[in-house]
Amino acid sequence: MQVVILGAGGFLGRKVAAKLGAEGHIGGRPITAMTLFDLTSPPVPAAGFPITALAGDIAELPAEAVPDDTGVIFHLAAVVSAAAEADYDLGRRVNLRGTDAVVDAARRLASPPRVVFTSSVASFSGGQGAVLGDDARQIPANSYGAQKAAAELILADATRRGFLDAVSIRLPTIVVRPGRPNKAASSFLSAILREPLLGLPTGLPVPADFAAWVASPRRAVEWLVHAAALDGARLGLDRSINPPGISARVDQMLAALEAVRPGAAALVRPVEDPGIAAIVGGWPAAFAPERALALGFSPHETLEAVVEAFIADDLDATRAERGKT
Amino acid sequence: MQVVILGAGGFLGRKVAAKLGAEGHIGGRPITAMTLFDLTSPPVPAAGFPITALAGDIAELPAEAVPDDTGVIFHLAAVVSAAAEADYDLGRRVNLRGTDAVVDAARRLASPPRVVFTSSVASFSGGQGAVLGDDARQIPANSYGAQKAAAELILADATRRGFLDAVSIRLPTIVVRPGRPNKAASSFLSAILREPLLGLPTGLPVPADFAAWVASPRRAVEWLVHAAALDGARLGLDRSINPPGISARVDQMLAALEAVRPGAAALVRPVEDPGIAAIVGGWPAAFAPERALALGFSPHETLEAVVEAFIADDLDATRAERGKT
Repeated sequence: MQVVILGAGGFLGRKVAAKLGAEGHIGGRPITAMTLFDLTSPPVPAAGFPITALAGDIAELPAEAVPDDTGVIFHLAAVVSAAAEADYDLGRRVNLRGTDAVVDAARRLASPPRVVFTSSVASFSGGQGAVLGDDARQIPANSYGAQKAAAELILADATRRGFLDAVSIRLPTIVVRPGRPNKAASSFLSAILREPLLGLPTGLPVPADFAAWVASPRRAVEWLVHAAALDGARLGLDRSINPPGISARVDQMLAALEAVRPGAAALVRPVEDPGIAAIVGGWPAAFAPERALALGFSPHETLEAVVEAFIADDLDATRAERGKT
Repeated sequence: MQVVILGAGGFLGRKVAAKLGAEGHIGGRPITAMTLFDLTSPPVPAAGFPITALAGDIAELPAEAVPDDTGVIFHLAAVVSAAAEADYDLGRRVNLRGTDAVVDAARRLASPPRVVFTSSVASFSGGQGAVLGDDARQIPANSYGAQKAAAELILADATRRGFLDAVSIRLPTIVVRPGRPNKAASSFLSAILREPLLGLPTGLPVPADFAAWVASPRRAVEWLVHAAALDGARLGLDRSINPPGISARVDQMLAALEAVRPGAAALVRPVEDPGIAAIVGGWPAAFAPERALALGFSPHETLEAVVEAFIADDLDATRAERGKT
């Protein structure tokens, strides 16, 4: 079976590629080849099967990016929240026309591939008090979330028609992201753990009792690979899944940081930012992900384990990368 | 104020154009000009203001179809359910790329126009037992419904961004449609009233206790014009409305027919069609449209009034049209 990763150069794409390279199978089905696709040629991980790296535009997805023997497509290519908000046309092109291109690529194959799509908690609203059930409507308050929700509908319809076999995972905010602080409104949720571990101060733009729906990179990657092997017949018409993230308050996150690295939390200082507080204040802080748990998506680890996993997996690389420039 | 009707040659588009031509205003704002757009040049109704009729492709909407002084756009252009199911690319082009073209046309205007969009009950599933509240998720079981739900998301996001000011009305199945039986799975819901009034026999593919969520053409047109004048601030992020249709069982519809035209119901004979029964059996039979009623959308008239309105508005024209060929 050929596996395709679209958006393979991104943070999660690289982790999925590395995991599949190391494991060599998905749910017991051996991987015989892998194709990695991104705007620039993505890094190729170690693997016991051939890997092709391609660069291009997802909205004009070339036929060679989805070979005839493709069994699974991870569709992670996206213009993320801050960028889609800043450039409407770019977000529409990548997040919507890109999804249409995936549908069209799947239609050319002899049998419908599993498509694992990363949707987002940003497709919901609801705010701090909310605990969203599996039947919650998506009423997005940002273009990224709206485009993700629309893409879910398109992929579910393409599934019903037999063009492909989609599972959309609405990822929580990923914590801890490696790298640098960025312009995403959620950037601080990673920064308050990552920056102190690098010995750097960082600002907290929300009150300490602010809660967010988060997931670790390890958990997110595990969910995506689980989705790749899931029995589609268990999903019916509804191909979208709210995975079992964790509702974490800022003070709980800082307590976990302090438990793992005593003294580190003192580097986080309140810096009020009503603009950021207003944006993130609209996001739902919690879900009741019963369907995902029934479908075997693994429950989330503790916040201390999240901090420890970042130290184990990403701290050195982040330090090295940031030391370079 | 200029008013634009996209899909102005269709059944509802012609009725909206005629109503606006006769009334000369929307919610007290005078109409100074109207532009009608469809695949072929739409008919021009009587009006006290100039009307331009244009033909073209909604996915390549020409700039002259949405003049600079446009205050309201009725976006009714669509590839309907049976056609979107038969031709995926055509449905995507008209129902999704067409909506993007409306967004782009609105972005070129100096101030955001009200866009009244016709979405559909076909964007929901749920079946005979369902009574859907205003928070019900859209889980479509057909491409038309999926494309309509995705277009709602795109228009709501464009509203939030200030490109336009959308109100999406999820129309029930329209009963009584004039004209001929067609290949739509819902065709029989109009045919069982229309054909007997023409003196013609017709088949009933579902049991007599089958219920559907329906609305009359008069009510649908009134809702669309009401939506054009609605205070958008009352809607918030959620720009979509389940209007107050009526949940009607087939036997109730036939009783109304019989009350208005004694003896007519005998022309309706059971003709089992498991294919049609399976499709329409997935549609929700009822809604609890509390939000729409609070927003001043008029409640539905009785089934007898629906039959009488068809006789008054459309029976002669239908008879004349069908006598022609």
